[in-house]
Amino acid sequence: MKDISTSRRDFIKRTAVAGAGLSILPSGILFAKDALPHVRLGFIGVGLRGQNHLDLALRRDDVEVVAICDVQQRMIDSSKELIKKSGKPMPQVIFEGPQGYKKLLENKNIDAVIIATPWEWHTVMCMDAMNAKKYVGCEVITGMTIDECWQLVHTSEQTGMPLMMLENVCYRRDVMAILNMVRQNVFGELIHLQGGYQHDLRDIKFNDGVKENAIGAEFGEKGFSEASWRTLHSINRDGDLYPTHGIGPIAMMVDINRGNRLTELVSYSSKSRGLHDYIVKVGGENHPNAKVKFKLGDVVTTMLKCANDETILLQHDTNLPRPYSLGFRVQGTKGIWMDVNHSIYIEGKSKTPHEWEDTKEWLDKYDHPLWKKYGGDAAGAGHGGMDWFVLNAFIEAVKKKTNTPQDVYDAVTWSAITPLSETSIRLGGETVEFPDFTHGQWMYRKNDFAQDDTY
Amino acid sequence: MKDISTSRRDFIKRTAVAGAGLSILPSGILFAKDALPHVRLGFIGVGLRGQNHLDLALRRDDVEVVAICDVQQRMIDSSKELIKKSGKPMPQVIFEGPQGYKKLLENKNIDAVIIATPWEWHTVMCMDAMNAKKYVGCEVITGMTIDECWQLVHTSEQTGMPLMMLENVCYRRDVMAILNMVRQNVFGELIHLQGGYQHDLRDIKFNDGVKENAIGAEFGEKGFSEASWRTLHSINRDGDLYPTHGIGPIAMMVDINRGNRLTELVSYSSKSRGLHDYIVKVGGENHPNAKVKFKLGDVVTTMLKCANDETILLQHDTNLPRPYSLGFRVQGTKGIWMDVNHSIYIEGKSKTPHEWEDTKEWLDKYDHPLWKKYGGDAAGAGHGGMDWFVLNAFIEAVKKKTNTPQDVYDAVTWSAITPLSETSIRLGGETVEFPDFTHGQWMYRKNDFAQDDTY
Repeated sequence: MKDISTSRRDFIKRTAVAGAGLSILPSGILFAKDALPHVRLGFIGVGLRGQNHLDLALRRDDVEVVAICDVQQRMIDSSKELIKKSGKPMPQVIFEGPQGYKKLLENKNIDAVIIATPWEWHTVMCMDAMNAKKYVGCEVITGMTIDECWQLVHTSEQTGMPLMMLENVCYRRDVMAILNMVRQNVFGELIHLQGGYQHDLRDIKFNDGVKENAIGAEFGEKGFSEASWRTLHSINRDGDLYPTHGIGPIAMMVDINRGNRLTELVSYSSKSRGLHDYIVKVGGENHPNAKVKFKLGDVVTTMLKCANDETILLQHDTNLPRPYSLGFRVQGTKGIWMDVNHSIYIEGKSKTPHEWEDTKEWLDKYDHPLWKKYGGDAAGAGHGGMDWFVLNAFIEAVKKKTNTPQDVYDAVTWSAITPLSETSIRLGGETVEFPDFTHGQWMYRKNDFAQDDTY
Repeated sequence: MKDISTSRRDFIKRTAVAGAGLSILPSGILFAKDALPHVRLGFIGVGLRGQNHLDLALRRDDVEVVAICDVQQRMIDSSKELIKKSGKPMPQVIFEGPQGYKKLLENKNIDAVIIATPWEWHTVMCMDAMNAKKYVGCEVITGMTIDECWQLVHTSEQTGMPLMMLENVCYRRDVMAILNMVRQNVFGELIHLQGGYQHDLRDIKFNDGVKENAIGAEFGEKGFSEASWRTLHSINRDGDLYPTHGIGPIAMMVDINRGNRLTELVSYSSKSRGLHDYIVKVGGENHPNAKVKFKLGDVVTTMLKCANDETILLQHDTNLPRPYSLGFRVQGTKGIWMDVNHSIYIEGKSKTPHEWEDTKEWLDKYDHPLWKKYGGDAAGAGHGGMDWFVLNAFIEAVKKKTNTPQDVYDAVTWSAITPLSETSIRLGGETVEFPDFTHGQWMYRKNDFAQDDTY
């Protein structure tokens, strides 16, 4: 079995003169020395999210969209519209049902794929893509069970193909400025961090079955887009179903899998009321869906510990009326940042002792080199520009034939929080151990994420 | 064994016509029907905190300060100054070492005592006072171990004497307005609540040994005021050492011990860095205290569950530079309030969907009847006026010879979080069960806290 981590250690030894900050060179393409001039990209899933990525890819001179596939005609049609508008050549279009993606993977002219399908398809598609020797950029949640997480690790190690989970929040402008501050020791030694996914998704989990943002009480077979699959997870599972936007940025700040690791977690789940109430409000108490029981607690809270003894708090809160907030908090021996109140406090530097200070000046001062360089390019891209950065990082890594800056170990570590939190809740709030997906290599690996303005 | 809860049930049956919202009439004074015209008060501990209460008591026409005792001459002296300035008669002054309080309790002219001593003295003093048939108002932390909590319950039940822990944050103006909103169903059914004690106490845990707020690295025998005892708890204990300011207000909102109860908790503790760093910063790395090891993690996070399936999150964070924040969050099916960003969101009522709204208008609109009535009297009293309310509630309950509005079950339930969190942490993050101090009476008891403008 080949091991990316081990390969990397060898690689670093061999290239020590090149200094720190090098990405892993996947063993499968270790001898392919010439960088690619452009990337030939295939899209598995061109629903609403896939089309965001497709749109960004079409705007790039270094990307050739070679193939797209989906299971819905309307999504194929709107994607073709996008492509026509871009003036780029029409790619291979595959509309052959759920297994159609395998035909896409047979295309030898594809270097890398973007996967944007329902969560339960991610693992098998990622594995098939890596086995077909494609780089994989997959939307968030890569591994719904611990077994799936391990399968992804083993497949990546065996094939030497990188898997990047496209966790965009790692590239949010304020988050990257805070990361920059962490690395410049502005917060001192980190002690406690918080994040989460606090987003009223009721309009996403339910709609009228016809279009996005159209109010309705339908889901599953009668639902449109995410309501057709995502809502089923709220019915059948209780846990932190969407941890990666919160943990990704935090993990990079405390060097998870890069000198540190998550060792354990425990989750508590509240009562479940929000989704039922929403159905009754929107569809009336006689709507057939008013009888549906939802397992997902409205607020799921998870505490994690790190090998270096930091604590992390994550919150999942998607069923209730509330303003959007990822609830970040970064706290060290010298100060604290919270995003919900746009405030920071740094001892001896903030204007008034014991008083919050607006973050703006700090975020401007410590703007990350990547944002300084590419902020203009990212303007207008989805989610405040961060979608541009995450796709760019993937594309650049493919071109350089290096490991991706967020790699397979990050992907499964962040995703594994979901099944572990489900287990913890099912056991009545027991602390459960976190697997070490790096096989002990976390002690050797260095944090090479966004160390400069490369990507 | 007499049982206040049972007595109360009998009492409620007998007086059903009087309606809801009645306080418990302690069995020990069940037949003393005439209200007291004024309260004869004794003070056990007149250090800095005791003097706050003494000062407020001296301003009242319905309180006669009958005796004071302390173990430090300087505290006796400054208390006598306060009394002289008030124009009230000089009370019995007891300065006879740690057991001197027993002499105070022998005074038959005392109806009630205020206890403001180090935590480790609270239980024995409360028990001795109840056994001496005094009403007890005790500063926060009543019971450092589960056994101490039970002893307090049993003693109160056996003597029929009420114990009120003087948890002042239950009377904070914004907190009471939110309680008012909770009761008027503005938040819908409550789902998740947060609170805590996030207060940089480094200047309290250490000083120069001579006076308050004088920067220094001394504690214990060489420390002044709280630094002489409180800091020892940070050396020897790891847990949420100060949970009551956070849990008290929340407990009243979700009817803990009054139709609901805390069923379990789990705590995680971060690394401990802040206190050592502070000693080095203030006293230099060669200061003898730089060798002291602190068990208390800098940030201790605790999750609790309720019988009615709400979740509660508490945070204890006293060793790091940070602005003060109790971190309240009250979240229900209709909306959410957070104090750190002074914001609220109520579905269908807040001005802009999905956006935070400043709390001011809401807090004004739902100002609690008690604050409307007594806000003027409380002006200038400690901690933004809430100290006035908590002492007032205690005095009024004594005068009426009823149970106190925060009673012995509240006192020990809120305090028990500390030893339970210590156990949870020591067991590596196991969920531990919460004792039911009410003997099942929580299912029958009604929430009678601050239902109107009485006290």
